[in-house]
Amino acid sequence: MSKVGVIMGSKSDLPVMQDAIDILKEFNIDVEVDIVSAHRTPEKLFDYGKNAHTRGIQVIIAGAGGAAHLPGMVASLSPLPIIGVPVKSSNSIDGWDSVLSILQMPGGVPVATVALNGAKNAGILAAQIIGSSDPKVLDKIVHYKESLKQAVIETAKTL
Amino acid sequence: MSKVGVIMGSKSDLPVMQDAIDILKEFNIDVEVDIVSAHRTPEKLFDYGKNAHTRGIQVIIAGAGGAAHLPGMVASLSPLPIIGVPVKSSNSIDGWDSVLSILQMPGGVPVATVALNGAKNAGILAAQIIGSSDPKVLDKIVHYKESLKQAVIETAKTL
Amino acid sequence: MSKVGVIMGSKSDLPVMQDAIDILKEFNIDVEVDIVSAHRTPEKLFDYGKNAHTRGIQVIIAGAGGAAHLPGMVASLSPLPIIGVPVKSSNSIDGWDSVLSILQMPGGVPVATVALNGAKNAGILAAQIIGSSDPKVLDKIVHYKESLKQAVIETAKTL
Amino acid sequence: MSKVGVIMGSKSDLPVMQDAIDILKEFNIDVEVDIVSAHRTPEKLFDYGKNAHTRGIQVIIAGAGGAAHLPGMVASLSPLPIIGVPVKSSNSIDGWDSVLSILQMPGGVPVATVALNGAKNAGILAAQIIGSSDPKVLDKIVHYKESLKQAVIETAKTL
Amino acid sequence: MSKVGVIMGSKSDLPVMQDAIDILKEFNIDVEVDIVSAHRTPEKLFDYGKNAHTRGIQVIIAGAGGAAHLPGMVASLSPLPIIGVPVKSSNSIDGWDSVLSILQMPGGVPVATVALNGAKNAGILAAQIIGSSDPKVLDKIVHYKESLKQAVIETAKTL
Amino acid sequence: MSKVGVIMGSKSDLPVMQDAIDILKEFNIDVEVDIVSAHRTPEKLFDYGKNAHTRGIQVIIAGAGGAAHLPGMVASLSPLPIIGVPVKSSNSIDGWDSVLSILQMPGGVPVATVALNGAKNAGILAAQIIGSSDPKVLDKIVHYKESLKQAVIETAKTL
Amino acid sequence: MSKVGVIMGSKSDLPVMQDAIDILKEFNIDVEVDIVSAHRTPEKLFDYGKNAHTRGIQVIIAGAGGAAHLPGMVASLSPLPIIGVPVKSSNSIDGWDSVLSILQMPGGVPVATVALNGAKNAGILAAQIIGSSDPKVLDKIVHYKESLKQAVIETAKTL
Amino acid sequence: MSKVGVIMGSKSDLPVMQDAIDILKEFNIDVEVDIVSAHRTPEKLFDYGKNAHTRGIQVIIAGAGGAAHLPGMVASLSPLPIIGVPVKSSNSIDGWDSVLSILQMPGGVPVATVALNGAKNAGILAAQIIGSSDPKVLDKIVHYKESLKQAVIETAKTL
Repeated sequence: MSKVGVIMGSKSDLPVMQDAIDILKEFNIDVEVDIVSAHRTPEKLFDYGKNAHTRGIQVIIAGAGGAAHLPGMVASLSPLPIIGVPVKSSNSIDGWDSVLSILQMPGGVPVATVALNGAKNAGILAAQIIGSSDPKVLDKIVHYKESLKQAVIETAKTL
Repeated sequence: MSKVGVIMGSKSDLPVMQDAIDILKEFNIDVEVDIVSAHRTPEKLFDYGKNAHTRGIQVIIAGAGGAAHLPGMVASLSPLPIIGVPVKSSNSIDGWDSVLSILQMPGGVPVATVALNGAKNAGILAAQIIGSSDPKVLDKIVHYKESLKQAVIETAKTL
Repeated sequence: MSKVGVIMGSKSDLPVMQDAIDILKEFNIDVEVDIVSAHRTPEKLFDYGKNAHTRGIQVIIAGAGGAAHLPGMVASLSPLPIIGVPVKSSNSIDGWDSVLSILQMPGGVPVATVALNGAKNAGILAAQIIGSSDPKVLDKIVHYKESLKQAVIETAKTL
Repeated sequence: MSKVGVIMGSKSDLPVMQDAIDILKEFNIDVEVDIVSAHRTPEKLFDYGKNAHTRGIQVIIAGAGGAAHLPGMVASLSPLPIIGVPVKSSNSIDGWDSVLSILQMPGGVPVATVALNGAKNAGILAAQIIGSSDPKVLDKIVHYKESLKQAVIETAKTL
Repeated sequence: MSKVGVIMGSKSDLPVMQDAIDILKEFNIDVEVDIVSAHRTPEKLFDYGKNAHTRGIQVIIAGAGGAAHLPGMVASLSPLPIIGVPVKSSNSIDGWDSVLSILQMPGGVPVATVALNGAKNAGILAAQIIGSSDPKVLDKIVHYKESLKQAVIETAKTL
Repeated sequence: MSKVGVIMGSKSDLPVMQDAIDILKEFNIDVEVDIVSAHRTPEKLFDYGKNAHTRGIQVIIAGAGGAAHLPGMVASLSPLPIIGVPVKSSNSIDGWDSVLSILQMPGGVPVATVALNGAKNAGILAAQIIGSSDPKVLDKIVHYKESLKQAVIETAKTL
Repeated sequence: MSKVGVIMGSKSDLPVMQDAIDILKEFNIDVEVDIVSAHRTPEKLFDYGKNAHTRGIQVIIAGAGGAAHLPGMVASLSPLPIIGVPVKSSNSIDGWDSVLSILQMPGGVPVATVALNGAKNAGILAAQIIGSSDPKVLDKIVHYKESLKQAVIETAKTL
Repeated sequence: MSKVGVIMGSKSDLPVMQDAIDILKEFNIDVEVDIVSAHRTPEKLFDYGKNAHTRGIQVIIAGAGGAAHLPGMVASLSPLPIIGVPVKSSNSIDGWDSVLSILQMPGGVPVATVALNGAKNAGILAAQIIGSSDPKVLDKIVHYKESLKQAVIETAKTL
C-alpha cells in the first residue's frame, strides 16, 4: 500500500496540516504523521530524511512557518518528492517568509510548493504523484475532480 | 518508458524551460515538448489537458510568465501531477506575478510550484515523482544527489 | 436591452460581487449571474466564454480570488470586453495574488482590472462601456457622477 | 467612425503608448493622441476630461508613471470608460507605484487597468469596448484572436 | 494669524485626520477643514487648489486613501507646500496604494508625505513650516519637543 | 536672505542630491551643503541638528539610502521642517528600505518625505515652504509652475 | 558578572521586549532595562550609546517599531555588538518598515537583526555572544538547545 | 587567538563573502573559510555545526542566497552566535527570499542577520562579539569607528 509521510515543524502547525491528512485518508492512502523540527531536532530531521524512502514512504509532505527550512532540508536528505506547505504562523510577515523560504530552492534540490496554508492541495498532489503510476489512484483523482465539478454546478443552481 | 510532458506558453519561455528538458534527458526520461498558450490557444490547452494521461504521460511541467494561467488550467483539466515553473518575463513585476498566479491555486486543484525560472528543479522533481514508484529512477536520483555533494566538496578544496 | 454577464469562481465570492449586480440594476441594465470555476468546471468555462457574445451579452464581469484565472481565461475565449474583479479570499497573500494574476495579462488578451474587491466599480465600468455607444446609458452615468458630487458637498456641510 | 483618445502624462511615455496607437490603427479605429499632464497642465486635463465625449470620443486610454493620477482624474471628469496604462518610469519603485495609483480607485470612479506597460492590451480593450456594440469591430476581434492562435500553432511546429 | 487648510477625500477619513486638527489647535494655529474629493468633486478641487493661497492659507494638509490623488492634485493646482497623509482605507492593499500614490510624485510637483495614518505629524510639520519664518511658532515647536522628551524620561522612571 | 541646508549621508549621494541644490539656486535661495553621516559622524549630526536654526537655516533637506536614519535623526534634534530624500543606494532592496525608514516616523517627529531619488522635488518643496511666508518666493513658484505647463503644451504640439 | 542592556523606543514596546528580559534572566545574565527614544530623547541616546561599554555592559538589545532608528543609532555610538528587534507597531506597514530600517545598515555599522517581534531570540543571541567567550554560559546554551529538542520529542509522542 | 568561521553555500557567494574575510583580517582575527551547502552537503553541515565550537571557533558567519537555509541550520546545530548574510543570487526575487529565510527564525534559534550582501558588516559584527569580552579587540573597534568618522569629515571638506 502507498504511504505518505506528513511532517511539520511544530504541533501548532497541525490545524493547518490536518487538511492534508484528511484528504489522503479520503483517497485511502496510508499516512504517517510526525513532528520534525529542522531547528530544534536536527538529528531527527537527519534520520527522517535519510530513511523515509527505505521504509516504504513514497512522498513526503512537510509544513512549516516563518523561516521555513523543514521542507528544503528534507529535500536535501531524501531522494523522494517533497511537497512543501508554507504555514502562516503568528509572527510571520504576512506569510511571505514561509512562502519564499520554501519556494526559492537552489538548482538541484526541488521542493514542490503549494499555496500558503494549502495543506489540502498538498494531500491531493501527493495522491496525484502516487496516481501517476497507480491507475486505481489515478481513477480516484478523476472521480474527485468530477465531484468538485458537480458541487459547483449544484451550487450555481441555487443562485 | 516513463514520459514527461513539457509545455510552455510561448517560445520565448524556451531558454528557461530547456533546463527541464536537459535534466530529464540526463535521467533518461522521455520528454515531449510543446507550446500551449492558455490565452491564445485555449482549445489546444483543453485537448492537451484532457488527453495527456491517456497517451502515457505521467507528469506535466508547465512554464509561463506574467499572469501565468497555463499550469493552473492544465491542473484543472488533467488528473496528473502538474509542476509549474514561474518564468520571469520582460514586463513582469519582478516575477511576483508569475510566482503568485501559479502558486496560489484554490483548494482541490494543486500545482507543484518551483522557484522563479527554476525549470531545472522542475525536471528533477518530475524524475523524483517517477522515482517514487520506479526503483531504477529513484536510484538515479540518489546518485545525482551524491554527485552534487561531491562537486561541492571538490570546489571547497580549491578555496 | 443591454446585458452584462456577471460570473464568479465560487459562491463565496457573491458577497463581494453583489455590488456589481446591484449597481447594474440601478442603471437598469440586465444582469445574468452564474458561477463558473476555471479550475473546477473548465468545460462550463469553455462554453460560457465561447458563447456569451452570441446570446446578447455585451460585457462580462468576472470575479475570483487567489490564483485568479477566471477573468483571463474568459478573455482567452470571448471577444467581448472582460472586467476582472480581484477578490481578497481567505488564504490570499493580502490580495496581491488575485490582483497580479488578473492584471498582468500577456499582450493580445486584455482584462480590464478594477481595485481589490472593487465589484461596484466593475458594474459602473460595464455601464460606461455600454454608455460609450448608448446615449441614454451615458446620460445615466453623467447623472450618477453628479449625484456622487452632491453627496460629498452635502457631507462637507455637516463638518 | 469610432474614435479613441490616447493621452499620456509626458512625451517620455510615448514609446510605451505607441503600442496602443498601432494596434488601434490595425483595427481601423480613429485615434486622437495628446499629452495631458495631471500635475503640470491641470486646466488642460479639466477641459479634456469634461469635453472628450462631446466631440465623438468613445473610449479614453490614459498612460502615466509613478504617482499616476492622469487615468483616475480623467475618470473623475468624464463619463466615458477610461483605460489606464501603468507606465514603468525611471524612478518608479519597480512599477508598483503606477500600478497601485491607477488600479485602486475608490467606489464610484472606475479605471479599467491593464498590465504594467500594457499599452497594446489597452488598445485591444478599447477595440473590444467599441466591438461590444459594433458587430463589424467585434468580428475583427474574433479574427484577431484567431490570428494569435494560428501564430502559436505555427511556432509550435518549429520546436 | 497663520492658517492651515485641512482637507480629506471623504468624511470617513476624519477619524484619522482629526489628529492634524487637534495638534494644530494645540499650537494655536487657525485651521480650516473641508471635504474635497479629487474623484467626485473635481470642480471643488480645482477651486480649492487655485484659491487657497489667495485667502491666507499658508500650508495645506490633504489626506486620502487607496489611489489617493487628492494631495498630488492640490499640489498641481496650488503654489503652497502640500502635506499628504496616506490613509489606510478599508479595501486598501495594506496601505501601500495610498503611500505610493502620494509619495511618488513626478519632478516639479512635490508632496510632503508623512507616515501611513500620520495626521498628527502632518499637523506638526505644518506648524514647523510656519515656524520656519515665525519665531513664536518656532519657539512652541522647541517647547513641544522638550515636552516629548520629558514624557519619555518620566515614563522610563516607571520601569 | 533665506537659507536651506542640504545634507547627505555620503558623498556617493551627491549625484542625486545635486538636483536639490540646482533647483534652489534657480529660485535664488541660498544653499549650504554638507556631508553628515548619522552612523559615522553622530557628533556632527548632533551639532548640526541642534544649531542649524540658530544660524539662519529655515529648512533642512537630508538625503540618505538603505536604513536611512539621517532625516529622522535631524528631525529629532532640530525644530525646523526637515525634508527627507530616500536615495536608492547600491545594495538597497529596490529602494523600499530608504523609503520606509524615512517615511514611517513616529508621532511627534515628522519628516516631509519626497519620492525615491526625488531631490529636485525636495528643493522645490523647500522653496514652497519659504514661499509660504515670503510673497516674492511664492511668486517664483507660481511662475515655475506656469513654465512647467508651457513646456508640456509646447511638447504636445510636436506630436 | 555579564550584563546586557535592553532598551526600547517606547514603553508600548515592553510587552514584546519582555521576552528578551525573561530569557536572559533564565540564563542568569544581568539585565539593565531602559527607555531610550532616538527621536524624542536624542541626548539620552547619545549618553547611553557613548557610555554603555564603560560601565560593564557587553551587549545591547534595542527594540523599536516603524522607522526604527534606535538600534542603528546606538550602533553608531557604541563599540559593542548591538542586537536590533523590529517591533510591529500599530501603524506599521505590516512590519516591513521596522525590519528594513533596522536590517539595512550601511557598511561599517552593523546591527544584528532578529525576526519581527523576535525579542526572545534577541535574548538568546545576547547569551550566545557572552557564551562565545564564557564556557559556563556556552554550556547553558547547549543545555537550552537540548531542552528545546526534548520538548519537541515529547510533543511528537502526543500525536 | 580568536577565530571566526566563515562559510557559504556556494563558491559563487565568495565575491560577496570576501568582504567579511578582509575586514576580519584587518582586525587581526583568525578566519577559517569553507563551503558548506545545506542542500547539497547536509552531512558536512551537520559535522560543521556540531563541532565548530569544540575546535576554537567563537563566531560563525554564514552566507547564502535564495531559500537560504545555511545560517539557520548551523544555528540549529551550534551553540555559537551565528551571523547570517543574505546574498542576492541570480534568480533571487530581488533578495527578499534570502533576507526572509535568514531573518525570520523561530523562537529559540536566533540568527544575527545583517543587510543584503552585507558581508563586511558581518565581519565587523563578529569582531564586536569578540570585542565584547576582549578589551584589545574592543579598542580596535573604537579606533575603526573613529577612522570612519575621520573619512567622512575629510570627504566633507572636498565639497
